[in-house]
Amino acid sequence: MEYAYLAAGFGAALTIIGGAFGIGKLASAAMEASGRQPEAAGEIRTSMIIAAALIEGISLFSLVICILLALK
Amino acid sequence: MEYAYLAAGFGAALTIIGGAFGIGKLASAAMEASGRQPEAAGEIRTSMIIAAALIEGISLFSLVICILLALK
Amino acid sequence: MEYAYLAAGFGAALTIIGGAFGIGKLASAAMEASGRQPEAAGEIRTSMIIAAALIEGISLFSLVICILLALK
Amino acid sequence: MEYAYLAAGFGAALTIIGGAFGIGKLASAAMEASGRQPEAAGEIRTSMIIAAALIEGISLFSLVICILLALK
Amino acid sequence: MEYAYLAAGFGAALTIIGGAFGIGKLASAAMEASGRQPEAAGEIRTSMIIAAALIEGISLFSLVICILLALK
Amino acid sequence: MEYAYLAAGFGAALTIIGGAFGIGKLASAAMEASGRQPEAAGEIRTSMIIAAALIEGISLFSLVICILLALK
Amino acid sequence: MEYAYLAAGFGAALTIIGGAFGIGKLASAAMEASGRQPEAAGEIRTSMIIAAALIEGISLFSLVICILLALK
Amino acid sequence: MEYAYLAAGFGAALTIIGGAFGIGKLASAAMEASGRQPEAAGEIRTSMIIAAALIEGISLFSLVICILLALK
Amino acid sequence: MEYAYLAAGFGAALTIIGGAFGIGKLASAAMEASGRQPEAAGEIRTSMIIAAALIEGISLFSLVICILLALK
Amino acid sequence: MEYAYLAAGFGAALTIIGGAFGIGKLASAAMEASGRQPEAAGEIRTSMIIAAALIEGISLFSLVICILLALK
Amino acid sequence: MEYAYLAAGFGAALTIIGGAFGIGKLASAAMEASGRQPEAAGEIRTSMIIAAALIEGISLFSLVICILLALK
Amino acid sequence: MEYAYLAAGFGAALTIIGGAFGIGKLASAAMEASGRQPEAAGEIRTSMIIAAALIEGISLFSLVICILLALK
Amino acid sequence: MEYAYLAAGFGAALTIIGGAFGIGKLASAAMEASGRQPEAAGEIRTSMIIAAALIEGISLFSLVICILLALK
Amino acid sequence: MEYAYLAAGFGAALTIIGGAFGIGKLASAAMEASGRQPEAAGEIRTSMIIAAALIEGISLFSLVICILLALK
Repeated sequence: MEYAYLAAGFGAALTIIGGAFGIGKLASAAMEASGRQPEAAGEIRTSMIIAAALIEGISLFSLVICILLALK
Repeated sequence: MEYAYLAAGFGAALTIIGGAFGIGKLASAAMEASGRQPEAAGEIRTSMIIAAALIEGISLFSLVICILLALK
Repeated sequence: MEYAYLAAGFGAALTIIGGAFGIGKLASAAMEASGRQPEAAGEIRTSMIIAAALIEGISLFSLVICILLALK
Repeated sequence: MEYAYLAAGFGAALTIIGGAFGIGKLASAAMEASGRQPEAAGEIRTSMIIAAALIEGISLFSLVICILLALK
Repeated sequence: MEYAYLAAGFGAALTIIGGAFGIGKLASAAMEASGRQPEAAGEIRTSMIIAAALIEGISLFSLVICILLALK
Repeated sequence: MEYAYLAAGFGAALTIIGGAFGIGKLASAAMEASGRQPEAAGEIRTSMIIAAALIEGISLFSLVICILLALK
Repeated sequence: MEYAYLAAGFGAALTIIGGAFGIGKLASAAMEASGRQPEAAGEIRTSMIIAAALIEGISLFSLVICILLALK
Repeated sequence: MEYAYLAAGFGAALTIIGGAFGIGKLASAAMEASGRQPEAAGEIRTSMIIAAALIEGISLFSLVICILLALK
Repeated sequence: MEYAYLAAGFGAALTIIGGAFGIGKLASAAMEASGRQPEAAGEIRTSMIIAAALIEGISLFSLVICILLALK
Repeated sequence: MEYAYLAAGFGAALTIIGGAFGIGKLASAAMEASGRQPEAAGEIRTSMIIAAALIEGISLFSLVICILLALK
Repeated sequence: MEYAYLAAGFGAALTIIGGAFGIGKLASAAMEASGRQPEAAGEIRTSMIIAAALIEGISLFSLVICILLALK
Repeated sequence: MEYAYLAAGFGAALTIIGGAFGIGKLASAAMEASGRQPEAAGEIRTSMIIAAALIEGISLFSLVICILLALK
Repeated sequence: MEYAYLAAGFGAALTIIGGAFGIGKLASAAMEASGRQPEAAGEIRTSMIIAAALIEGISLFSLVICILLALK
Repeated sequence: MEYAYLAAGFGAALTIIGGAFGIGKLASAAMEASGRQPEAAGEIRTSMIIAAALIEGISLFSLVICILLALK
């Protein structure tokens, strides 16, 4: 079961690398855009949350696979 | 079955790295574009969701392969 | 059969890294272009879908190879 | 249990690499934006904390998996 | 035959990384160019499909080698 | 226990790579912003410390995991 | 013969990474150039096909070596 | 104890890579900012030392873990 | 002879990565230059073929070494 | 003791990579800044030496750990 | 003699990566320069061939070492 | 003693990579700055030699560790 | 003697990567500079050959070490 | 003695990568600077040779370590 533990730890970490990079990238773009046009900030924040939710969803799916492996 | 567990964990994580990078990239471009021309924000959000759905689709396909391997 | 499982998991993940990067790259370019000239948005979206379909096609071909390996 | 320890240490570290990169990226964008338009600083800080919380959440989820592995 | 499976999975995946990067790169350039000069969009799309076909051709050649290895 | 020591040393180091990169990135952005608009320096420093504290928090969490492993 | 299979799969894939990158790079430059000066599009397309043929030639040479190895 | 020595040496080195990169990044930003507005140099130097101290703190924490491992 | 096969496959592939990158880089520069000054296109194409021939020459030399190894 | 020697050599080298990168980065920024505003050169040199001393300090700490390992 | 074959194949390939990158870099710079000032194209081409010959010389020296190893 | 030799050779080489990169970076910045303001060239050269001496110092420290290992 | 062959082949190749990169970098800068100011082309070419000779010298030193290893 | 040979070959090569990069970087900066202000070319060439000599010195020190290892 050793490799399962290995996969769980590294998998969870790499998932965070991927997910945090994606959310960080789009959130930084959202802030720059809302800083450039403050009157469109509400609509941009809506788009930001939609896109971040898409990434959050597949990230949690991956973390569930990892916790399945960690409990073997 | 050890290698299958290994592949499941790392595969799911690398899938998130790929998918989150892709969605983050296009979503950030969409936000910059909608921040530059707020009157075209609706049409850009439509394109964003179409392209994100294409990535989401192959990502979920890959996650299903990984969960198949995790349950072996 | 262990290596086949390994190849299936990593192969599917790396396919997503490649495919999502490609689609994300061209989709972000499409959005920037359609944000710069909203009147050409329809034609650009047509090109975007053609090019994304080319990538989607070889990605699915690769995922089929991976699922063949996962079921061995 | 050796591999579990290995995974715990590296996993926690890589989680920080991912999470800190994401938070650092969006926070730097938030500061540049609030430095360019000081009157929108409050609203940008709100967005910054929302997005950082999303990353903080999945990072803590991953750290919990790692501490589970470290205590095996 | 284990290594053949390994090569099939990784080879197919790396082929997609290469091919999708190439197609994504030229397609994004094509969209930026057609977004900058909409009256030349037809001719640029013709060039885009010619160049994409060259990449698609050698990619499919490589995928055929991979499927040969997967069926050993 | 050898792998636990290995994980402790490398884990602590990689945690610093991640955390220092994040803090360095946002602090450099904060300094550029406060250098561009000196009258907003106080508010930017407040945001800088909030965001740095978020990174500092998960970094110390990870270092605690590492010191747990080092003392095994 | 295992290593020969390994070399065939990875070799074909890395060939595509190289070739597709090269063709994608010059094709994107060709499109940007023809988008900037549409009246020189014919001559640029001629140069594009000459240079792409040079890359295509050595890529096919390499793929032939790989298929030789795959059939051992 | 061999791996502990290994971890100590590499861990200390990677800690310096991380910490020096972070301090170097924010210090270079501080110098550019103080070079652009010399009248704000005092306040920027204060911020620089605060942020550098945060990185210095976790770096020394990590070095202490490494010296613990080196003395095992 | 296994390692010779390995070297043949990977060597041919890495040769393409190198050669295609070089040819792609100079060809893209040639196209941008000829797109900026169409009246100098003939002379630039001459230089392009000379430089590409230099790369083509050492690439074929390397491929011959690889095919020698593949036939062992 | 072999691994201790290994760690000593590589650790010292990687320490130099980290430290030299950091000092090089901030020193280059200091020179550009003092080249842009020669009247502020004295104050910038003071900041440069303070920040370089911080990096020099942790680098020497790490080199001492390495020389401890080299003498085992 | 297996490692000698390995070294021959990879060595020749990496030589091409290095040499082709160098020649491609300077040739692209030569073309951009000659495209910007067509009247200096002759002198620039002379410099280009001198510098390319320096790289070509050490590359052939390295390829001769590789073919020595391939014939062992 | 084999690993000590290994560490000596690679350690010395990586030290040069680090040190040469740092010195190259700050020297290039010094030259650009002195090329932009020739009247400040003397003072900039003084700063360049101070900063280069700091890097040279820790590099020689590391090389001494390496030569200690090479003579074991 | 196998490792000596390995070192000879890879060492020669990596030497070319380093040397060709360096010569390519400075030669491209020389061409851009001589393309921007054709009247200073002679003096720049002199500097180019001096700097290239310094790199050529240590590269040949390294190749001699490699050919010593190849003839063991 | 095998590892000593390995270290000699790779060490010499990596030394060239480091040294050539550093010299190439500062020489290219020197050429750009002397191309921008031809009247300061003499003084810049003096600085270039001083800085290159610092790198050349530690590179030769490292090559001497490598040739010591090659003759073991």
